Amino acid sequence: MTARLLPPSGRGRAVIDRVIPEVDGGRFPIKRTVGEQVNVEAHILVDGHDQLRCLLRHRPAGETTWTELPLMLLNNDRWQGNFKVTDPGRHQYTIVAWVDRFLTWRHDLSRRQDAADIAVALQVGEILLHAAAARASRGDAKRLKDWGTRLNGAGTPEAGRDLAQSDELGALMAANGERPFITEYDRVLEVVVDVERARFSSWYELFPRSCGPDDETHGIFVDVIAQLPDIAAMGFDVLYLPPIHPIGRAFRKGPNNSLAAGPNDPGSPWAIGAAEGGHRDIHPELGSREDFRELVGRARAHGLELALDIAFQCAPDHPYVTEHPQWFRHRPDGSIQYAENPPKKYQDIYPFDFETEDWQALWQALKGVVEHWIGEGVRIFRVDNPHTKPFAFWEWLIGGVKADHPDVIFLAEAFTRPKIMHRLAKLGFTQSYTYFTWRNTKDELSEYFTELAQHESREYFRPNLWPNTPDILHEFLQHGGRPAFKLRVALAATLGASYGIYGPAYELMEHLALKPGTEDYVDSEKYQLRRWDLDRPDSLRPFIARLNLIRGEHRALQSDWSLRFHSVDNPLMLCYSKTAGDETLVMVASLDPLYIQSGWIELPLHEFGLAYDAAYPVHDLLSGVGFTWQGHRIFVRLDPQAFPMHILHLRRA
Amino acid sequence: MTARLLPPSGRGRAVIDRVIPEVDGGRFPIKRTVGEQVNVEAHILVDGHDQLRCLLRHRPAGETTWTELPLMLLNNDRWQGNFKVTDPGRHQYTIVAWVDRFLTWRHDLSRRQDAADIAVALQVGEILLHAAAARASRGDAKRLKDWGTRLNGAGTPEAGRDLAQSDELGALMAANGERPFITEYDRVLEVVVDVERARFSSWYELFPRSCGPDDETHGIFVDVIAQLPDIAAMGFDVLYLPPIHPIGRAFRKGPNNSLAAGPNDPGSPWAIGAAEGGHRDIHPELGSREDFRELVGRARAHGLELALDIAFQCAPDHPYVTEHPQWFRHRPDGSIQYAENPPKKYQDIYPFDFETEDWQALWQALKGVVEHWIGEGVRIFRVDNPHTKPFAFWEWLIGGVKADHPDVIFLAEAFTRPKIMHRLAKLGFTQSYTYFTWRNTKDELSEYFTELAQHESREYFRPNLWPNTPDILHEFLQHGGRPAFKLRVALAATLGASYGIYGPAYELMEHLALKPGTEDYVDSEKYQLRRWDLDRPDSLRPFIARLNLIRGEHRALQSDWSLRFHSVDNPLMLCYSKTAGDETLVMVASLDPLYIQSGWIELPLHEFGLAYDAAYPVHDLLSGVGFTWQGHRIFVRLDPQAFPMHILHLRRA
Repeated sequence: MTARLLPPSGRGRAVIDRVIPEVDGGRFPIKRTVGEQVNVEAHILVDGHDQLRCLLRHRPAGETTWTELPLMLLNNDRWQGNFKVTDPGRHQYTIVAWVDRFLTWRHDLSRRQDAADIAVALQVGEILLHAAAARASRGDAKRLKDWGTRLNGAGTPEAGRDLAQSDELGALMAANGERPFITEYDRVLEVVVDVERARFSSWYELFPRSCGPDDETHGIFVDVIAQLPDIAAMGFDVLYLPPIHPIGRAFRKGPNNSLAAGPNDPGSPWAIGAAEGGHRDIHPELGSREDFRELVGRARAHGLELALDIAFQCAPDHPYVTEHPQWFRHRPDGSIQYAENPPKKYQDIYPFDFETEDWQALWQALKGVVEHWIGEGVRIFRVDNPHTKPFAFWEWLIGGVKADHPDVIFLAEAFTRPKIMHRLAKLGFTQSYTYFTWRNTKDELSEYFTELAQHESREYFRPNLWPNTPDILHEFLQHGGRPAFKLRVALAATLGASYGIYGPAYELMEHLALKPGTEDYVDSEKYQLRRWDLDRPDSLRPFIARLNLIRGEHRALQSDWSLRFHSVDNPLMLCYSKTAGDETLVMVASLDPLYIQSGWIELPLHEFGLAYDAAYPVHDLLSGVGFTWQGHRIFVRLDPQAFPMHILHLRRA
Repeated sequence: MTARLLPPSGRGRAVIDRVIPEVDGGRFPIKRTVGEQVNVEAHILVDGHDQLRCLLRHRPAGETTWTELPLMLLNNDRWQGNFKVTDPGRHQYTIVAWVDRFLTWRHDLSRRQDAADIAVALQVGEILLHAAAARASRGDAKRLKDWGTRLNGAGTPEAGRDLAQSDELGALMAANGERPFITEYDRVLEVVVDVERARFSSWYELFPRSCGPDDETHGIFVDVIAQLPDIAAMGFDVLYLPPIHPIGRAFRKGPNNSLAAGPNDPGSPWAIGAAEGGHRDIHPELGSREDFRELVGRARAHGLELALDIAFQCAPDHPYVTEHPQWFRHRPDGSIQYAENPPKKYQDIYPFDFETEDWQALWQALKGVVEHWIGEGVRIFRVDNPHTKPFAFWEWLIGGVKADHPDVIFLAEAFTRPKIMHRLAKLGFTQSYTYFTWRNTKDELSEYFTELAQHESREYFRPNLWPNTPDILHEFLQHGGRPAFKLRVALAATLGASYGIYGPAYELMEHLALKPGTEDYVDSEKYQLRRWDLDRPDSLRPFIARLNLIRGEHRALQSDWSLRFHSVDNPLMLCYSKTAGDETLVMVASLDPLYIQSGWIELPLHEFGLAYDAAYPVHDLLSGVGFTWQGHRIFVRLDPQAFPMHILHLRRA
């Protein structure tokens, strides 16, 4: 209780009640990418009728000098301003405000009607101007004093009153006025500025092991290099590889996750570590360190950034197990505790014990793993199951890595409960996997993506949409055939600025599940080599290439926040739009992979800058067909055998 | 940037992501009244599958020892608990959580199926129990060790597994288990606990000046004492008087706010201060200090708490003006700046200059005024225009006063912009005037009161509803006749747990405005004496007494949060309910003071504990008529000449 002590700043009358955006009272930063704006709104109050002056301050973290910009009053005590972020790294912002005596004086003066009253007010004004002159440069000081004389010698008081509204005088006083009893917002807020790929990225995942010439020859990095032109031609810009480290032999899993591996079974890449090394080493069957560097460089030359998998767990024969036994939990029988979620057991995996007394060395070693691969040229990490390692660990690791390498991207592979996914995003993950894979109906998609695009969590949670992963072959793809594969990738590519596919399983429409009711692929590459016929004539490669081309050419698809859903009178059809500048894309999709569907869509033409009954040209970027629409209610028909979706380009007439 | 330093509590894995209720990140307290519960919800997360133990801690502010209660997991990482507040004052709460090794062990154990696996787990359990025994009392230590032996000697591993789920063992470990790497929420939150009248109060405002025997004789406190039985019989429990201090003579206003007062005009009670004294003094024409004390005591004996008006402003002849000229702003011509909002001038009022260098003495003096009247027995203050004095001043004053006198109530008379009203409520005002006076249509009422009752601002903003005040005679009352007066007071009394009327103008249906289009009363008591015929046969006194009787007998009307609006298919009718325990009141009102209105209401019977098609008795507490309703759609007809509203009492069949 300090209520009875007088507050030191008792004369500060401005109150900064709320600042937006702000995550958890400033505990976490918001996120932007290079070139984006930060729109800041503040609720700023003052007692009585006096006039406030409010400034937005911002600076790169670590600098001491603020750049100041005026905030403008919107209405209802809401003030707004914005700044642009230009470099990767942390940037700070905050607000100051004070009761401005000059603005208050001038505002009151403008409403005064009684000549004697105005005359007294003009004297008060001259005192304010002289006080400002005392703080001003010699030139400004002279001009301020001249203004004082002009106001009081304008012939009539009314003429002086009107003269005082001059913009020139306003600017002079803004530059030289005092800031009495200034109120500083009690928090300095931060924005993490990422590279553009953090906001807009198209991921392609593949298993290098399956890039060999046949299904008995282990693929190598050199084989992946050979595929780069095709992957780049499909329009992807991130190439993500499952773990590339030596694979454990103890309890190695065989094909289809069988308990006993044969002598030639390659094992799961996520069972990391063997005699050949651990998380900093490369599986000898994939190639050498030099081959890897070559892959990183050649990929980049094709516009593809390599993304590595970070899976912080060990096979029983990982060198850490003997070098740092204290990093693992031991059972009373002397054995090391393998991963389990009773009654399930994963004897091929040892989790780290983050409660170990030696936790500091463990944390440093794991951060060292990330830094090692950054040293090898990697800038993107897809983090496996981050929700099974402590939150504080990730905040420290990502914060530390990005302090040195602000261009690094971390994608959180946490398919878990929403608050946990949000916490991981808040504490630093650049992008997050989503529930998209399991959102298939109209209501599911529109509710979930309205939340992702409109809720304040968008300040920190950047979705990355995957229609499939090596772990998830959704029922819809198992049974929906080619139209389902086209639909889901088209939804991912247009609902999300970042999306990815696990290929070639995707473009070749691999749809067989291990068992009915599961989402596991049969003969999964996780446990065996596969040979993919990339040139199969029915491959979706051209379709996906077209989607990515459209994404690259239309800024509306390169960010998430403009997404809006629109009415269609058919529950199997979905309509939504995205906007950038004066360009709008309208997507109309049929969620039915079997039958032709049709319906009336309703578009908010006024929001697109068009009159209610306008006639306007639309161009379907997917089919290449153009036509003219009129009015806000439009009939649309979609045949799943042709195109599951229109991507319609609207321009103001 | 401290990201590269290892956090000291790196092994603490529990994360307390959010606590509800919490106002502005804990910057402001929530509010409750004595006997109410505080329901606390927290979002608490942990990595992986381990089991958390989460405690709610609470204590009176100033004490060092916490009372701890377990939180229960609701779903989706939401935990909930509650405590009851019993004494006025500040109370604190916060949350702690940790990964509980025993609960995790037992949870995993319950799902283990392999006998060898269970046997190892039972050994692990015995180690946990022995560790707890080392911390326990001698009796508990023995019991814990016995349990260890029993689990491992239960015949079969499966028997040991099942035995481990014992509640007795759970309780032993809850009492003696360790709290490794505990996470404490980083804020201690506060709740201001007020007396019950802060939540549930019925205010009656009158001008003592008009309580005299005729309209030429100034009323005195003794006259007010004579009216106490009637006011109490109407069911009110707060009697609020406009300022009772000496009234300034300089620039005194005459009848109807005319600029020139005659020698016998009493002036406005808000023009405080004259030769006879200031804010601590009593207007001689009202009586003596002893009379005032008598009034306070006699009112209390009638169940009426006296509320005084706090108007921190001065008439030009207030003693402060000569004693503390530095507390006022001076103009270049040497005069003191009167209140103004150009072009309006209020020459009879000098505002304090809160930017004065002598602000500390000013603050102390004004707090001293409040403390003076507390010394005279006053416990309720209606604060005039708090939004024209600095926010920091009120927070300090109210905080300080309530630290010494936690039973004191402050009502904020701030009819201004919403964010300012909210800030005043957050910083300490116990109750707040609302926009009720200007909310007359169905949409206006349902939207505004849904916000007041359901939005999280209810944690700090307690509405007090006034159908009229000496400053506001709404158009609806000017033109709506007797039905309008009945309707508006019935709405106030049932929409709000706290409400008030300015009487006798209200019960005598005073409805003449000074000028068309204004809300000022003609011949307002603010500037002249009035004689009210309290016994007029058309007085609403019996109607208001009945409303207050209903309020007193039905807990549902004594708090705000249970308010829900229900559908009526007539835009001139309003239907809403309030619930307490197994009692529900359903209000159906006609907003039309002229014509009979009817419509079908729809009630969510399942929420009232009734079946969809149930037949149930209802009793109209206002008319005294009872009948039986069936089903959730009911036809209702209201004649404004009879009753503008039903107040229907429902009990579960």
